Amino acid sequence: TFSRGIQTVTLIPGDGIGPEISSAVMKIFEAAKAPIQWEERNVTAIQGPGGRWMIPPEAKESMDKNKIGLKGPLKTPIAAGHPSMNLLLRKTFDLYANVRPCVSIEGYKTPYTDVDLVTIRENTEGEYSGIEHVIVDGVVQSIKLITEDASRRIAEYAFEYARNNQRTSVTAVHKANIMRMSDGLFLRKCREVAENFKDVKFTEMYLDTVCLNMVQDPSHFDVLVMPNLYGDILSDLCAGLIGGLGVTPSGNIGANGVAIFESVHGTAPDIAGKDLANPTALLLSAVMMLRHMGLHGYAKKIETACYDTIRDKKVLTKDLGGNSKCSEFTDDICRRVQDME
Amino acid sequence: TFSRGIQTVTLIPGDGIGPEISSAVMKIFEAAKAPIQWEERNVTAIQGPGGRWMIPPEAKESMDKNKIGLKGPLKTPIAAGHPSMNLLLRKTFDLYANVRPCVSIEGYKTPYTDVDLVTIRENTEGEYSGIEHVIVDGVVQSIKLITEDASRRIAEYAFEYARNNQRTSVTAVHKANIMRMSDGLFLRKCREVAENFKDVKFTEMYLDTVCLNMVQDPSHFDVLVMPNLYGDILSDLCAGLIGGLGVTPSGNIGANGVAIFESVHGTAPDIAGKDLANPTALLLSAVMMLRHMGLHGYAKKIETACYDTIRDKKVLTKDLGGNSKCSEFTDDICRRVQDME
Ligand SMILES: CC(C)[C@H](C(=O)O)[C@@H](O)C(=O)O
Ligand SMILES: CC(C)[C@H](C(=O)O)[C@@H](O)C(=O)O
Repeated sequence: TFSRGIQTVTLIPGDGIGPEISSAVMKIFEAAKAPIQWEERNVTAIQGPGGRWMIPPEAKESMDKNKIGLKGPLKTPIAAGHPSMNLLLRKTFDLYANVRPCVSIEGYKTPYTDVDLVTIRENTEGEYSGIEHVIVDGVVQSIKLITEDASRRIAEYAFEYARNNQRTSVTAVHKANIMRMSDGLFLRKCREVAENFKDVKFTEMYLDTVCLNMVQDPSHFDVLVMPNLYGDILSDLCAGLIGGLGVTPSGNIGANGVAIFESVHGTAPDIAGKDLANPTALLLSAVMMLRHMGLHGYAKKIETACYDTIRDKKVLTKDLGGNSKCSEFTDDICRRVQDME
Repeated sequence: TFSRGIQTVTLIPGDGIGPEISSAVMKIFEAAKAPIQWEERNVTAIQGPGGRWMIPPEAKESMDKNKIGLKGPLKTPIAAGHPSMNLLLRKTFDLYANVRPCVSIEGYKTPYTDVDLVTIRENTEGEYSGIEHVIVDGVVQSIKLITEDASRRIAEYAFEYARNNQRTSVTAVHKANIMRMSDGLFLRKCREVAENFKDVKFTEMYLDTVCLNMVQDPSHFDVLVMPNLYGDILSDLCAGLIGGLGVTPSGNIGANGVAIFESVHGTAPDIAGKDLANPTALLLSAVMMLRHMGLHGYAKKIETACYDTIRDKKVLTKDLGGNSKCSEFTDDICRRVQDME
């Protein structure tokens, strides 16, 4: 895996602290001699024919060509009718699986020490269908759409993921006791797919029960697969267990290798441009990206350096409990990466 | 409040451990000389005209007359098309507010020590509408229904609750960034109602953010109000923070004083009838009931005795970390209640 040629990745630095943490990642990748070349693109939405919002053609073409993207935080659009750019990206590239590994970080203290799980969220439909109506004055409905195809696809992704990542169980998270038809369909597909993965243990749990058990003892959970909204909730909850969105990576995976990896924290406008941001979430997302590209050696090296810096506690950004600048934290990781040569 | 006459409450002991924990509560109430008389009713659903499931007329009449009920756990029906009895009860009596206080219990160790919040859940509509369709083969929709009336009603309940219980803030929990019309309507009503409660601080938060912040630092939260499903999730999450459903009370509140208080744990068939069950959740629900009835003195006495027994750690049921029987735990609380005379 160290011998391939240089691959090009679309880099979307994003807003606020996005550019600084993107620079940090690029610097660390350079120190690690990772065979990645960056193609920077802006994704501020533009309005196409008929007023439809779309991502700019240069960004779209870059992603279509490179297939792989790394993305910093994007500010929430305020124009009426403007979609979330995060959602527009997931939709434009049919990134159907949102994958968030949550692993306790040694040296970063939270009430939990033994979290090691992955949430796999259906990323295209469900409660995020965007279909809503006013029925009569004062009565509104939102439609949750669940399809057989998307449910099977995400279930297959989850089981493949478990198998390929030496994980032993997949838990389907649902409320099929309440939404019998929609969550029922999702659950049925999970059960069917489970039949083809006899080497992976399959269980089913109610979302409320998962939340309760998760805060009591997260160590029992492994791979969790679920409809869109449940994944939104549970992935944030689990991120909270290990230290928050500042240290949690995320990947949005589509078909044929297409994927965008991103930090899911905000743009932190208050500290933007002040060299105070923590690049960990974006860096660990970039590490996920390297693994996705088969570059496991580089992934391991960078990940180890990042965790070592955190465990060492000498050079930490403010949010991690230290006094160091983003650039100092970055340099410490670079130094470790170089020492591993 | 000690001087009123004896009031009658409908008691639904429920299944599994339900009868034992109900007996425990009755015994403690007797020891406290609480002016309550119990009218025991069974709520195993029957099928009315046209096959519609309904709660038995004797239970319905008792509740209609007494207005106030206390309920143990009910086993999940297995007959196809059989509704959850819990949902049927909420519906039959239009119990629109589900109220679950979560307060850290001294002496019962969890990773959190400073939880003191209340989740207030809209209990009649939203994702629990029960309206679902197959659109075409393999495509299913569930309808989330949000109405102006129910949203205003629950918002008003939350603010009244905050005001009447010396709480300082109400947080509306939503995903109006995704479900702009339905959660948008809910949120708008919360904002409107907030205008009439200038003495209570009002904030709004995304559900995912609440989950993340909740596991990182629950001490910032006070009263939380939200649509049905979000309440289902968040109330279980919060219960987990303080020790689980075995120690968390719950009340379902309707108009004109109608209310059913219940433990929301399961029927625990494995230990049923063995004098091993923990009656705390039902007892604390009964304490909520006493407060609802204006019997604050009795409520305080019983609550204090229960917490003292737990803090003391000498007589605890197995799930609380002890070796005592349900009856011994109950007797210890009775003794304390009597000592307070
Ligand atoms: C930004 C927002 C639209 C998004 C979501 O709700 O999915 C975010 O919370 C996430 O988890 O990626
Ligand atoms: C029993 C079940 C139908 C119920 C729900 O989903 O509301 C339960 O989880 C609850 O929280 O009361």
